[in-house]
Amino acid sequence: MTNAERTTRAERTTRAERTPRAERATSIDDLPVRDELRGKSPYGAPQLDTPVQLNTNENPYPLPEPLVERIAERVRAAARNLNRYPDRDAIELRTELARYLTRTGKHPVAVENVWAANGSNEVLQQLLQTFGGPGRTAIGFEPSYSMHALIARGTGTGWISGPRHADFTIDVAAAERAIAEHAPDVVFITSPNNPTGTAVAAETVLALYEAAQAAKPSMVVVDEAYVEFSHRDSLLPLIEGRPNLVVSRTMSKAFGAAGLRLGYLAAHPAVVDAVQLVRLPYHLSAVTQATALAALEHTDTLLGYVEQLKAERDRLVTELRGLGYEVTESDANFVQFGRFDDSHTVWQRILDRGVLVRDNGVPGWLRVTAGTPAENDAFLDAVRQLKKEQSA
Amino acid sequence: MTNAERTTRAERTTRAERTPRAERATSIDDLPVRDELRGKSPYGAPQLDTPVQLNTNENPYPLPEPLVERIAERVRAAARNLNRYPDRDAIELRTELARYLTRTGKHPVAVENVWAANGSNEVLQQLLQTFGGPGRTAIGFEPSYSMHALIARGTGTGWISGPRHADFTIDVAAAERAIAEHAPDVVFITSPNNPTGTAVAAETVLALYEAAQAAKPSMVVVDEAYVEFSHRDSLLPLIEGRPNLVVSRTMSKAFGAAGLRLGYLAAHPAVVDAVQLVRLPYHLSAVTQATALAALEHTDTLLGYVEQLKAERDRLVTELRGLGYEVTESDANFVQFGRFDDSHTVWQRILDRGVLVRDNGVPGWLRVTAGTPAENDAFLDAVRQLKKEQSA
Repeated sequence: MTNAERTTRAERTTRAERTPRAERATSIDDLPVRDELRGKSPYGAPQLDTPVQLNTNENPYPLPEPLVERIAERVRAAARNLNRYPDRDAIELRTELARYLTRTGKHPVAVENVWAANGSNEVLQQLLQTFGGPGRTAIGFEPSYSMHALIARGTGTGWISGPRHADFTIDVAAAERAIAEHAPDVVFITSPNNPTGTAVAAETVLALYEAAQAAKPSMVVVDEAYVEFSHRDSLLPLIEGRPNLVVSRTMSKAFGAAGLRLGYLAAHPAVVDAVQLVRLPYHLSAVTQATALAALEHTDTLLGYVEQLKAERDRLVTELRGLGYEVTESDANFVQFGRFDDSHTVWQRILDRGVLVRDNGVPGWLRVTAGTPAENDAFLDAVRQLKKEQSA
Repeated sequence: MTNAERTTRAERTTRAERTPRAERATSIDDLPVRDELRGKSPYGAPQLDTPVQLNTNENPYPLPEPLVERIAERVRAAARNLNRYPDRDAIELRTELARYLTRTGKHPVAVENVWAANGSNEVLQQLLQTFGGPGRTAIGFEPSYSMHALIARGTGTGWISGPRHADFTIDVAAAERAIAEHAPDVVFITSPNNPTGTAVAAETVLALYEAAQAAKPSMVVVDEAYVEFSHRDSLLPLIEGRPNLVVSRTMSKAFGAAGLRLGYLAAHPAVVDAVQLVRLPYHLSAVTQATALAALEHTDTLLGYVEQLKAERDRLVTELRGLGYEVTESDANFVQFGRFDDSHTVWQRILDRGVLVRDNGVPGWLRVTAGTPAENDAFLDAVRQLKKEQSA
């Protein structure tokens, strides 16, 4: 798990300052919270007020104005019926998501294969409530998306930290051994991986799926939050004939809609049936469904932005390497670069130049999101200056 | 727990029919789901296509057109920034919710006292993840809102079914004994209670709070989803000096916004800090926050509808009693009536007349939501006919 603790220091100070001292006499530790929550801090990157924010892998391109208008139009229509509960099964939205996956994923997907929730975090939480939970375990290969471990903790699922190679690819033999040894109930594979940017080959997923079935059988969750930015195809076709394989996706990145909180999964229909046993009824609001449907109407425009971001991502890799940095091969909309004796000090020095990147707590490395060309120039100027000062 | 199972039969048939047979070869039970989920069905009232729907306690009044326009306007503005993550702490929304509570709750509430999530179900889930969970228990006094038990199950919290008097008020002495015996970690008190409509006196809450503190100490969650419809004041002032007391609320009913999914709580700031340890980061979308803020601007109009619904609710009580039915005293926007030897058959016969009410599985009783005057007339006509046929 990467250190969510350290990155939230700034945030906590802010919150404490907002609250009158008298009110603070009772703190979290005075409440009967669960033991494993004591001394913990909320997850989240610091939201600092800097000119260039390349720390949370957001898409830098605002939605095009015709889409903004379409969202207003669809939400207006939804608001006229807002006194009624939303479609609990989100049939229209899941149908359109299935259409999108079929079009881009090289595999036919139907509404029965798709489930949606408030961000892929909620999708993953529902999967862990269904297939993990108390007395069960999940494994991830770290460093990876730190929410996997945090959601495991939140659902009472034991967490096993699996290995990677030094180059951040998955060490298949070691991973197979870990799966055989621990027989986890859920296996997370993140492709492209966050924060490293590393994509995972289909053969690797298949090998780990086989290992997981032999050991338990367990569910394998392929987290493809960043797959639209990858040089490789989606791993979606692997769900065919594998009811224990789930692919999770999000509209936060490729669709430029982090503020919408729309995550989804594709899997065998039985998986979609199963998560409905734990989903909160009417979890997905009518305005969320309406907004997502509007965005899906503008898929082509939004995927055009993705192409621009891929080119910028590749430029960041090339330029950083030209400056002498080590850069992890990236299939995402961000780049991991290093190596630093003290990455947090470098993070601060880049911030001093007005550019916020992410220190995920991977020793020696930092992560920068691909922004607009101008934002990336500002970042490259900052690290260029850093190099100059070091060699001076 | 009321029988969510039975009420979802219609729904399940529909879903099964939609899915090709070949795809259904693998079912939920072939997947490695948690044992306690095997054989279960998803929660939710049947969504049947009847002219008069008085089954889910929705507010029958659509939002006024100026509010619909304001929602479109606020969502349009939010959509222009949708590529960025939403305000993780929802400061503006929580500030306005605090202002609303201060104005209507006879107790000053600040932003630090308020937390919001996707429906009060998610608020309750976060509370159970924080204060319940594996190895811990929660108690409710049943019949009550069946999601309390279901969310307990979903979070691995043991569930204890506490007693009520035959008239559906809480049996304080028996409840105190149950709390002393089981020492639960979370105590749910629903006021007004769903599905019975019964409000709870402040003295009862205080007695159970004291019992809960003596036994453990544990958290007491007062679910006030329907409080705006009550003859009594909110129990909100009780949070003063009681850090282990939480009041949960929703915009689904009084604000006529079931489709919005906006629930919130008021409590000591330490409780608000604590739930942030388990909340999924950025759980509340920018469009949800924008829509809720628009609705809060129109509070006066919406509370005007509440007054109309209270009058209609009182009319339902009077008329039903006039027809010779037993009616539970109601402080909500619905009425529980009976008693029937076979409530499900009566439910079906009312449905045959085009009016959908709710069979919550409380033996001998049904629940009808207060709709528009015309909808309530249709319902009263249906039960009047029923009475006639019975005496014929």
